[in-house]
Amino acid sequence: MTKIAADFRIALPASLADVIAAIHPCDPADAVEARRQLDSLTKPIGSLGRMEQIAERLLSIFAREIPLPLKRAVYVFAADHGVTASGVSAYPSAVTAQMVLNFLKGGAAVNVLAREHRAALTVVDVGVDADFEDAQGLCRMKVRRGTSNMHTEPAMTEAELFQALEVGIRIAEISRQHGENLVAVGEMGIGNTTAASAITSVLTRHPVEAVTGCGAGLSSEARTRKIEVIHQSLQRHFGANPEPAPLELLRCVGGLEIAAMTGFILGSAARRTAIVCDGFISTAAAAVAHAVAPHVRDYLFAGHCSEEPGHRFLLRAMGLTPILDLGLRLGEGTGAVLAMPIIESSARLLMEMATFSSAGVSEASH
Amino acid sequence: MTKIAADFRIALPASLADVIAAIHPCDPADAVEARRQLDSLTKPIGSLGRMEQIAERLLSIFAREIPLPLKRAVYVFAADHGVTASGVSAYPSAVTAQMVLNFLKGGAAVNVLAREHRAALTVVDVGVDADFEDAQGLCRMKVRRGTSNMHTEPAMTEAELFQALEVGIRIAEISRQHGENLVAVGEMGIGNTTAASAITSVLTRHPVEAVTGCGAGLSSEARTRKIEVIHQSLQRHFGANPEPAPLELLRCVGGLEIAAMTGFILGSAARRTAIVCDGFISTAAAAVAHAVAPHVRDYLFAGHCSEEPGHRFLLRAMGLTPILDLGLRLGEGTGAVLAMPIIESSARLLMEMATFSSAGVSEASH
Repeated sequence: MTKIAADFRIALPASLADVIAAIHPCDPADAVEARRQLDSLTKPIGSLGRMEQIAERLLSIFAREIPLPLKRAVYVFAADHGVTASGVSAYPSAVTAQMVLNFLKGGAAVNVLAREHRAALTVVDVGVDADFEDAQGLCRMKVRRGTSNMHTEPAMTEAELFQALEVGIRIAEISRQHGENLVAVGEMGIGNTTAASAITSVLTRHPVEAVTGCGAGLSSEARTRKIEVIHQSLQRHFGANPEPAPLELLRCVGGLEIAAMTGFILGSAARRTAIVCDGFISTAAAAVAHAVAPHVRDYLFAGHCSEEPGHRFLLRAMGLTPILDLGLRLGEGTGAVLAMPIIESSARLLMEMATFSSAGVSEASH
Repeated sequence: MTKIAADFRIALPASLADVIAAIHPCDPADAVEARRQLDSLTKPIGSLGRMEQIAERLLSIFAREIPLPLKRAVYVFAADHGVTASGVSAYPSAVTAQMVLNFLKGGAAVNVLAREHRAALTVVDVGVDADFEDAQGLCRMKVRRGTSNMHTEPAMTEAELFQALEVGIRIAEISRQHGENLVAVGEMGIGNTTAASAITSVLTRHPVEAVTGCGAGLSSEARTRKIEVIHQSLQRHFGANPEPAPLELLRCVGGLEIAAMTGFILGSAARRTAIVCDGFISTAAAAVAHAVAPHVRDYLFAGHCSEEPGHRFLLRAMGLTPILDLGLRLGEGTGAVLAMPIIESSARLLMEMATFSSAGVSEASH
């Protein structure tokens, strides 16, 4: 425990350290067994392509007993970002709260997809700059009303960081108690591509210019301003230390929803839940989780590849291949939910197809 | 009618000519209306990427009234190929019939996916070299027991070609009578990548070597033999005429299931049904349909991109972008059925999302 804390260069609360310690790698023997089963099915060897790799991973996550149908859920973590004061977004901050209300009324893209693909949707307010009343599908777990502006000070205090991580860990616990075993990680937060770009540049060691895109629709001039803000923020916080510890990085330039997603991913991996990342922001959270607990990787699926340029760098750094590539750049968990039918289909193929011997089909001559 | 027949260099039966004449382009005004609706929804402009283009196409196919939920079906056209006698396949011909029985028992990959994604599955025997009894889900419409060997003679007579095309047209009619409006085109036929490669080489004007792959699992030596057989077949039938009419190409080097799929695609487009092509073989059938009736293009979705090298050439020739790219190379309609939830989701997003004004969400500043 002491050693882990030293690696983080932040003293970890015991609960977080316990969660990290509970993340175990999948057993390679389960992947071998999946391969044996796949090769006995009535199809040419390997002809189901990526579906076979997904099935292999599912058999490993669930230790050979894939519980079908998978119980699906999507969590949309929402928070505001102080850095919007520095003019990094095409939309006003107020849109975060407006979209939370839109989620609660069922009108956003992720609502439509969650209904269509049988994923229970929960919105988690970790730090929206507005007050919400209790509502069906809303978890009120606000840490504070938006982060501080990373451009001028750390986005969070240590206490706030840990509180946001704990929110995610707690949600992962509740999710598992509800029997959910395939979860999508989504987010809403005006300004959060700025935070994700800063995180991505440091974690993947690619220049800010390369990983920073136009977010929800910046002009190229505004994108230049956004890059400058990220540069200056990284210089301010880590000027003398180009390799901050992942949680210190998250604290200084992250967001409350990003920290909560990091906690959620850690907590879900510790409970052997299959986790589907969505776009750039949720994958940045996964990358922080991966940096503190590399075995998280065994439980992660990349739902899709976003148009935001930094996303590809994050996926590559973690060795994840996206399931879909449809040019989405919306977030909310949309790409992750859309990948769920593909993920479940992979499991169904493995579990339900006939074998050559059971179906009396001749095998190939080699 | 005479003019069309002249273009084909084969006299067309009246019913086929009527079907071709009934294929109308979609109205560009419907795509404009789709764009207007999409841009009013609570998401940054264009942020749903390819999903928006799919929605646009659906609104056009269904002339602004997308009937949700879409009624889905997959048709698996099965036939044998005389060219297997020339040693072009890793599997014995008997596997075609064995797989038909596997489809009827529900054990093949496409069965699993069709169940999972609510697509009614029908197997159409257009030319399997075996006798089947009546069975639930089987259409017995055999033209003959397998084609002749294209390596030594035309695969079909004119009468057989038209009969196979009519099978597909008839199936499209029945499908529409059942209210189906989203259909996947699948196939099973040992040896049919050889036929599809020959068709692709001629239609896309790419060398046989470039468009011919390993099918269900050939060694590189066997692939060389397959390429030689295709070369010699094309030389035998069209040596003096490098640009055969599409239906003459289909007759000489096609397959009964490929001809039936061509008829099915023509018939479905004439009835304004949304058509999802699967892999290399069904897309070769679509390319023949497209060559005789270019407006077919407006009704086609490319479900996925196959590992068979010729598939990309066909998609490019028709200007189709595949929805999925999962390294599948199985056929049966698997990739097409897997794309159905994405297609339907696109329509749901268009029809069910809130607008900026209805949800009270602020728009971007520009």
